[in-house]
Parts: sequence; C-alpha cells; structure tokens
Amino acid sequence: MQTQPKRKIILDCDPGHDDAIAILLAAGHEAIDLIGITTVAGNAELEKTTLNALKVCEIAGIDNIPVLQGNSQPLIRKRETAADIHGDSGMDGPVLPDPVKQAGEEHAVDFIIRTLMESDGDITLVPVGPLTNIAMAMRRKPAILSKIQEIVIMGGGTFGNWTPAAEFNIYVDADAAKVVFESGVPITMMGLDLTHQALADRDVCSRIAEIGNPAAGFVSELLTYFRKTYLEFFGFEHPPVHDVCSVAYCIDPTVVETKKLRVDIETKGELTYGMTLVDLHGVTGREPNVNVALKLDHEKFWNMLIRTLETY
Amino acid sequence: MQTQPKRKIILDCDPGHDDAIAILLAAGHEAIDLIGITTVAGNAELEKTTLNALKVCEIAGIDNIPVLQGNSQPLIRKRETAADIHGDSGMDGPVLPDPVKQAGEEHAVDFIIRTLMESDGDITLVPVGPLTNIAMAMRRKPAILSKIQEIVIMGGGTFGNWTPAAEFNIYVDADAAKVVFESGVPITMMGLDLTHQALADRDVCSRIAEIGNPAAGFVSELLTYFRKTYLEFFGFEHPPVHDVCSVAYCIDPTVVETKKLRVDIETKGELTYGMTLVDLHGVTGREPNVNVALKLDHEKFWNMLIRTLETY
Amino acid sequence: MQTQPKRKIILDCDPGHDDAIAILLAAGHEAIDLIGITTVAGNAELEKTTLNALKVCEIAGIDNIPVLQGNSQPLIRKRETAADIHGDSGMDGPVLPDPVKQAGEEHAVDFIIRTLMESDGDITLVPVGPLTNIAMAMRRKPAILSKIQEIVIMGGGTFGNWTPAAEFNIYVDADAAKVVFESGVPITMMGLDLTHQALADRDVCSRIAEIGNPAAGFVSELLTYFRKTYLEFFGFEHPPVHDVCSVAYCIDPTVVETKKLRVDIETKGELTYGMTLVDLHGVTGREPNVNVALKLDHEKFWNMLIRTLETY
Amino acid sequence: MQTQPKRKIILDCDPGHDDAIAILLAAGHEAIDLIGITTVAGNAELEKTTLNALKVCEIAGIDNIPVLQGNSQPLIRKRETAADIHGDSGMDGPVLPDPVKQAGEEHAVDFIIRTLMESDGDITLVPVGPLTNIAMAMRRKPAILSKIQEIVIMGGGTFGNWTPAAEFNIYVDADAAKVVFESGVPITMMGLDLTHQALADRDVCSRIAEIGNPAAGFVSELLTYFRKTYLEFFGFEHPPVHDVCSVAYCIDPTVVETKKLRVDIETKGELTYGMTLVDLHGVTGREPNVNVALKLDHEKFWNMLIRTLETY
Repeated sequence: MQTQPKRKIILDCDPGHDDAIAILLAAGHEAIDLIGITTVAGNAELEKTTLNALKVCEIAGIDNIPVLQGNSQPLIRKRETAADIHGDSGMDGPVLPDPVKQAGEEHAVDFIIRTLMESDGDITLVPVGPLTNIAMAMRRKPAILSKIQEIVIMGGGTFGNWTPAAEFNIYVDADAAKVVFESGVPITMMGLDLTHQALADRDVCSRIAEIGNPAAGFVSELLTYFRKTYLEFFGFEHPPVHDVCSVAYCIDPTVVETKKLRVDIETKGELTYGMTLVDLHGVTGREPNVNVALKLDHEKFWNMLIRTLETY
Repeated sequence: MQTQPKRKIILDCDPGHDDAIAILLAAGHEAIDLIGITTVAGNAELEKTTLNALKVCEIAGIDNIPVLQGNSQPLIRKRETAADIHGDSGMDGPVLPDPVKQAGEEHAVDFIIRTLMESDGDITLVPVGPLTNIAMAMRRKPAILSKIQEIVIMGGGTFGNWTPAAEFNIYVDADAAKVVFESGVPITMMGLDLTHQALADRDVCSRIAEIGNPAAGFVSELLTYFRKTYLEFFGFEHPPVHDVCSVAYCIDPTVVETKKLRVDIETKGELTYGMTLVDLHGVTGREPNVNVALKLDHEKFWNMLIRTLETY
Repeated sequence: MQTQPKRKIILDCDPGHDDAIAILLAAGHEAIDLIGITTVAGNAELEKTTLNALKVCEIAGIDNIPVLQGNSQPLIRKRETAADIHGDSGMDGPVLPDPVKQAGEEHAVDFIIRTLMESDGDITLVPVGPLTNIAMAMRRKPAILSKIQEIVIMGGGTFGNWTPAAEFNIYVDADAAKVVFESGVPITMMGLDLTHQALADRDVCSRIAEIGNPAAGFVSELLTYFRKTYLEFFGFEHPPVHDVCSVAYCIDPTVVETKKLRVDIETKGELTYGMTLVDLHGVTGREPNVNVALKLDHEKFWNMLIRTLETY
Repeated sequence: MQTQPKRKIILDCDPGHDDAIAILLAAGHEAIDLIGITTVAGNAELEKTTLNALKVCEIAGIDNIPVLQGNSQPLIRKRETAADIHGDSGMDGPVLPDPVKQAGEEHAVDFIIRTLMESDGDITLVPVGPLTNIAMAMRRKPAILSKIQEIVIMGGGTFGNWTPAAEFNIYVDADAAKVVFESGVPITMMGLDLTHQALADRDVCSRIAEIGNPAAGFVSELLTYFRKTYLEFFGFEHPPVHDVCSVAYCIDPTVVETKKLRVDIETKGELTYGMTLVDLHGVTGREPNVNVALKLDHEKFWNMLIRTLETY
C-alpha cells in the first residue's frame, strides 16, 4: 500500500547522454509521475535533442509520456552546442533505430503553461538543459509563477566547465537563467559542485552492465562514450551523470545535502557571462534564494538508479 | 480605379497618445490593409495599453480589425513605463467610455506567427512600442524571418530621450531590440532624429480641430495632453507624434528620406543600455543593416494624417 | 596698461594638427601665460607628439616655455592612435627640420603636480588630448584637486567621431576620463558639438594664407593636410580645429556659450566605451558637473586666432 | 660558505596582519635581500599601512631597509578597505609605540622604477596588496617590463573572499591587476587556493608562542586578532597568513606546487569585477601566462617561518 503520492514532474531536457539516463530514472521510478518531457536546444540543436528524447522513450518502452518540442535558440544569444562532449548527434555512442513515436504538436512552452495552469500547484519543473523554455513560459504567462511547486535545476556551480567561470547549461542562455533565478519560485540547484560527485566509476559501470536488459545496455553504451569524451576534454577519470542528480533529488531529497544560499547570474561580464555567483560565506548580504546541493550520497544515488534500471 | 494593392501591416503598439493616432491613420487610410493590432507593455502596463487600443477602435468605429494582447514584461528586464509622459492610464486626456469590443483570445505572438506563416511574405510589421512581441515571435518560430516583408520600427535614434543615450522603446527592452536588429530582416527605423520633426505645431492642431468629427476631436484631446507633458518633461514647444511616422512611411515611403546605415544595440553598458549606435559616417566598417529615416516631409506628412482623419 | 592678469595655463596635448595651432594661440596671445606644454600619446605615439610639440615651438620661436613628456600609454587599455587623420608622424603635411629644443627631464605628471602644488590655485589645465596625464597626476597626488582652478577639456560631445558613440580623446583613455570627470574639479568641455562649429572654411584659410609669416604659413600647411583627411575620412567640407577652442575659451570665455550639465563617462559598454553621456534635458536627475560648450561665436573665434598669428 | 646569491626583492604591501609577518620573513631570512618595502592603500588607508610597515620594522629592529609610500587610491575606482578583517588601524591587536623610523621621501612608484632601471634584471617584485603601485610603475615607465625578473603576487584564486567571485587584493584594483597580468612579465600567483592552506593552526601558534622574542610575541598577537576576525567573518577555524606565502616562495620555490595556466582579469562584470579567471582545464585555448600555486608544503612552510622568527 502506497500512501505517499507520486511527485509530478515535467522534465525539460536536451539529450544528451546524462539527460537520457535522467529520462530513464524519471520514467521508471515509482515515486515519480512524469507528466511530460520537453526538449530544448542545448547539447545539440533542437531537432536532434527531440529525436534523442524520442529514441530514449522507444528503447525503454516509455510510450505513455508526451514529448514536446520547445525553443531552438536562446532568448538573446546565438545558439552554442556541446558537440565535443556529446558528439554530433548530441547522443553519440549507442546506435538506435529511428523512433516511431512522434513529438506532440503543442509547443513545449504552451504545454508547460497549460499544465501548470490546470494543476493544483503540485508540479515540479526539472530543467536539465539551458533554461530557455522555462524563462519563455514565465515571460509569456507570469501567472504560472505561483503554480510551480519547485524548480530543480541542473546547472551552475561555484566553478565552471564551459568557461573557467560558467557551466554549460547556464552559459548557453544566461539571460534565461537570470529570469528564472530572479523569479521568486523555490529553486534547488544541482551545480557542478554536486554533479562532479555523481561519477560513474568502474564499480558502478560493472553493476549496470550486469543488469542485462536493453535499457541498461543502452546506459552502458552511453557511459562508455561519455567516459571517453570526459577524459579527453576535461581529464576526468570517470564521467559525471549531471542531469540524473535533479531527478534523484525529486525522488528522495536526502540523496543530497543542500544549503540555502544567495545565487546570482552574471550576464554582463567580458569573461564571466553565465557564471552563477554562489555566496557560500554570505559576503554579499543578499537574501538566500536557492537551495544549493553540495554533497551527494554516492551509494544511495547509484542504488536508486541501478534498481530503477533493473525494472525495465 | 485602384491598381496598387494595399500594404498589409500588423501594428504592434502600446497606446499611448501617438500610438492612438497611428492606429487611426493605419485603419483609416486606403493604402493600408491593417490586418491586426497587437499590444505590448510599454508606455503603460499591458492591460492598460490593450484597453486603450480597444477604446481607440471603438471611438473611431474600427470594428473589423482584431486586437490581440501580447507580452506584459520585457524579455529579461523588469518592466518600466512612461507614466510621466502618457499619464497613469497610458492615454490620459480624453475621457472615453469602456469599450464593448474585446481583445481576441489568441496571444499576440501566436497571431503574428500564424499570420506570417499563412502569408505570401507580403506582411509588414510595424512595431511602435518595445520590441518584446516581435523578438518573442522570432525566437518561438525562427521560420517567420523569411516571411516578414519589412519591419518599420519607431524607436532609437542618434540620441536618447529616456536616458541621455537611449530612446524609450528600445530602452525598455533592448534585449528584444538586439534580437530584432540582428535578425537579418529588412528594417526601417523611425528614430528620434525623424520623429522630433513630426511636431504637432499650432497650425496643425488648428486644422485638426476644425475637422469636427469624433475621431479628430479625440486626436485634438490627445495632442492637448501630449503638448503639456512634452513641455513639462522635455521642454518641447510642440509634441512629436512619433509612432505616426512608421505608419505614414508604410503609406508613402517618400514622406521621409532614409539612409542605409549600420545600427547596433548596446545591452552591456552601465549608462548606455538600450542605445542604438547609428554609424552615420561608416567608422565601424560594419555592413549597413537598417534603413534610417532622417528627414521628414512635414507638409506631406500632416496632409496625409489630416485627410485621413477627415474620412472618419 | 594691462590691469587684467594673464591666465596661467598648462597645455596638455598630443600634436596633432589642431594641437599645433592651439599651441600657437596659447603661446602668442597676450591674455595667456603658458607655463608649460605637456605631451601625451594620442593622435600619435608619445615620442612623435613630443617631437611635434618641439617642432611647433621651434618654427614659431617659442623658446621660453618648457615641453615635458608624459605617458606613452593609457591607464589600462592598449594604445590607439589616429594615423588616418593626422598621418604617420601625427602632424603630416608641413615639412619641418628636427628641432634643437629638447623636452625637459621632468616627467609631465610630476611637472603638473609640482607646478600646481607651488601655485596659489590659479592654474588652469587645458588637456586637448587623452586625459592620461591629468588622471595620473590626480591619482599620484590627490592634493592637487583643490589647487586646479579649472580644467578646459577638448573631448567628448553628444555624439562620437571615433566610434558612433565616442570622441577620439575620451575613447583612447576613457578610464582616465572617468577619473577626471568624477574628480569634483570645475570642468569646461569643448566637445564635438562645439568644435564642429570651428571650421576652417575657405574664407578663414585665405585670411591665414595672407598673413605671410612662418607661423601662419605653417598653419596653412596644417589646414591643407587636415582638410584632405577630414574630407576623405569624415566627409567634412572644412576641417574643424578642435583643440584651438579650449585655448580660445581661456582667452575669452564669451567666445562660446556654455550650459552646466551632467556628463558621465561610459567605460563598460560593449559598443559605447568612451562615450560622454551629456544629459541635455536633465532626465538622469544627477547634479550637473560640467560646463558644456554648445555654441561658438565663429567671427570672434577666428579673429582671435588670426590676430594672434599676425603677431608671430 | 654561501654560494647561492640572495634573491633581491621589493615587498609591496598594505600591512595588514599577514603583511607584517611577510615583512618579518623577508627581512629575517638569509636567502632574501630585501631592498625595499613599498606601501599601498589596501587593507587600510595609505597613511595607516605606511605607519604599520614602519612599526613592524621598529619592533623587529629592521633599520637598514627603506620604506617608501605609494598610491593612496586605486587607478580608477574609489578606495575600499578591509577594516572588518584587519581592524580600523589595518593592524589591530598588538599595541605598538609610534615609530621613530620615517618613510623615505621618494614615491614608491619612483623607487620601484629607479631600482629596476639601475638593476641587472635580477629583482623580483612581491606585491601582496592591491596592484596599484606596480601598474602605475609599468605605465609610467614601460621600460621596466624587461627588467623585472618575476612578480610573485598574493591575490586572486579560483574563488573569491571579498565577493563570491573576487579576492580582496585583486578586487580593490582590478584595473591595475589587468595591467599587470597582461604585461608579459613572468608572474607567480599565490591565490586563495594556496593561501587557504597556510593556516596558523593551534600547533603552529604554540610553536611561535614558545620562541619568546619580541618579534615572535608580536606575531602571536597578530595571529590572535586575525583568528578572531577570520572566525567571525569567514567562519574559519584557523587564520590563513596569505601574504607570507609569496615571500616563502621566493626563499624556496619548492614550498609550493605550481601549474602554468591562463589567468585573466574580469573588469566589466556586474557581479564579477576583480575575478581572476583561472583556466584549470585549458577550455579557453588561451596561452598560459601565470604560474599558479595550488598546493602548499605545510611543514616546510611553517618551519621556514618559525626558524626565521627565532633569529630575531
């Protein structure tokens, strides 16, 4: 008998290797009611991230969840993608057939707005790509602000990866990030400080490889590719599965330790565009506005993911 | 017998005294096919500018043209209005009854996108307020770019009015302006250099007062109020009817002299946010991207407006 | 019998065609006590502007006034020169012998500081190049601030020439300009609004050509060259002698009409670095800090210069 | 018999608790030839930092080393001090008599220039406060650039302390820092990554307390005060002696591990002014320009300092 209601989330993503695993966790875990997958340009162009989302659904047999296509460009800036990390397709590595499943007709921004406005305020937004869709929705329909339960962002951190100052998701559309971070909606942020602890080490990879179903096999292929590019590009021994952290937090907030801190977005700097200024020591005197995840429970996290993959 | 087809325009506005007169000119002149009036926050909040647009339609008997409501806030920045100039209602002065006419259900941005996509590429956008709606449409549906015949903007100039560097419409949403000015679509700009020549002097006001129909009476009341605030706030002897210039240009391009120049938008400056950098002498070496209106044919302009008001 | 004491000035310059004429006016007019000529990098590199200053002194027989060399680079930025306008030497056109006169040993900044500190507060600084030396002096010895009678700057304006927003002298070292404009010292600014009225038209050139002494011959040659580059580069029919305006104002303030206005310097903009924001209509609400020259008495100005040239 | 020549350094400082200890190490260690102490505004106003430097010399019997006073304000910005950390005097805690020793007449910038120009290129600059004096010297006399052996800066890091992005010394005069970091001179940087390892823990403090001479007693009092403010303001258990690291490196470079990395200074950001962008993973593709110290040999470091204090 389950007394705890499932947590309703909209997963806004740009698959993306770690996005793909995040979809599998969100769609497969019993504590989550995944009411929609929305796509955005980010790791790759929009048509690619949408195609990848559909492919993930198809290989994992996720057929009851709508996939909606969102914005193909940031609010203001020119589009920038991460082909060095995710390959030209945005999800290089696994070779998958073209999906039968199609994206819905509704624009992702309209889907987000409509779903929120029809809700009882119990929907969590989980953006794990650039924040373009979320900011667009907020600007198109400011009334959604009071309808969002929480936004669990993958992005930012006290250091960068795309530039010395900025993390990729925030950097790609820092103007959108500024809109979201200043919206007043409760925000939890899975920044690089946290996600660089979510490393798929050898032990984790073995356990996933042993599962033996198609979803787990797909994840193994994703991690093999991701391991290669993270080593080449960033010198990491093991690849971090950033986006999975946001979904894991929605399933069980105790998987991370968080601290309420002031976080602001730099959009003017010559070298610091897209930086998230995390005021760790309270030196700005500005009121905390973001729940910043700082420490991961490695065992709980991987157990959660692996058990979910086993159910596919 | 008219052989010249009417010019199809969407008037995107934030009435606003001069916006109101622009609506009257666009709706009343035989050379224009006004296919929609879209509203945006600017001179006043969105609900006010929409209400004002509806009132203008009602007093002038414009009942076959849809009014669609757009964005209530700029892309990124906090909203700023011009109550000092246009009064609290956005169109202080004339006292008008509440309109029966209602705004359409469709969002202005969707209306602009749909209308353009269904067109043969023969629609001109005439934004005379902040460029939020136009930029939003461009970002939501990049395919419209090749469908826009021309954008005839009221905004910018080689000097400012809202700050020493920036004109109000561009200043309010310079991020949107940057999107539009860098879009590659043909742009004609009615900046302050031009619109400060479109002064409603005593002679003009007398001629309008003598017309004697309700539309002209309404315009007289608008100009009386506008004269007062332009004197108090800017020290102008006669008020400039900025927005009317864009419509007049659509009716007859020879009403102004233009020059193809490079125009860029400053969005980073500490004191210069929203400035339109007009490269009059070609010192930047950048390719001209905007047709900048520099000289008004005063007589032709006012004759055009007055003759149109007479037809109401 | 002279009752009016001479006005003591230090002319800080980067000759430069118009700088050269400014030196001749300052050294030759009876109302001015030119206590030093200091040089700075600007129109050309420092060694060239210093050499040019010495050449001007030599051809005009100015032998009792020290020439002191200042900074070869702006405070922060890389050096930029104006070879397109002034030629490679910084004073192309007239062919002059190498001067016998040498620059003094003292650094221009030290000369400015020492002279001011030893004075009764009756010295006016007349910087007609980038403001590097003046800012450096202010930072090295803040006590000079209360010793400066007035600073009569050639630079800035409500529009630009080097970029669409910025005038050359301010653009080259806007950081220095910010220090000076925020110093609290009384400032009078001869910006482009004024100096573009100081045009050496055909009549003026004829009158100078008729004088017949070496100094006037030299000025004629300078104007011939300057006419050519101003036509080619800026499309001007007649060349403006910017820097002469500052000296003329020191001789007789009634040669210009001024207005006390707020002027601020943009140092952060992407496209507007070095802009002087002149708040003509008081829209910023900030306290006026600069006496801005807006209108030139053309006849009085040229008579003053021509009569002085006749005395050489 | 000593075969290794002493390393000649100029210590440019703003005492400051850790500056004071740095002076004692530099003046007392046999491997260093301290040819001058120059002062700058930073932790406190210039007159205070100069007075503090003189007091340190007096209590420690350092009487053969000149103390020269430098700039009282940053290049461009308004002065900012750190009274919260160092107290109102800039060196609160120990109560010291007014010194008999006086600062030299020569300006610190002139001393730096003259000493470098007279040298064989064997002088190292050790700036442990804001970089104003060093930048001023570089701008006043660019010829010194090729005369500087190395600059060993205390400042910057991959994170901030004064703001979430910026370390105090760089923040106070980031414009000066930009001049220095882009100068082409070999730079070694002791940023917060390193100096936060130089913690005066209980064991260290006991060892210093046991020495029993006046210099060591003075250091104990400094550390007692510094411990208190670092706990209150930053929540540190033990206080870091930032500036001492730069001197320790000059004595024995093996006291730290360094890595050659690209470091750039942000001077335009809204929230990131004064940030040092350290490109740890080479993502910018820009050529490394700074030797960044990343790891401290704790034992070697404290032994070096304690043995030196014992010699007083």
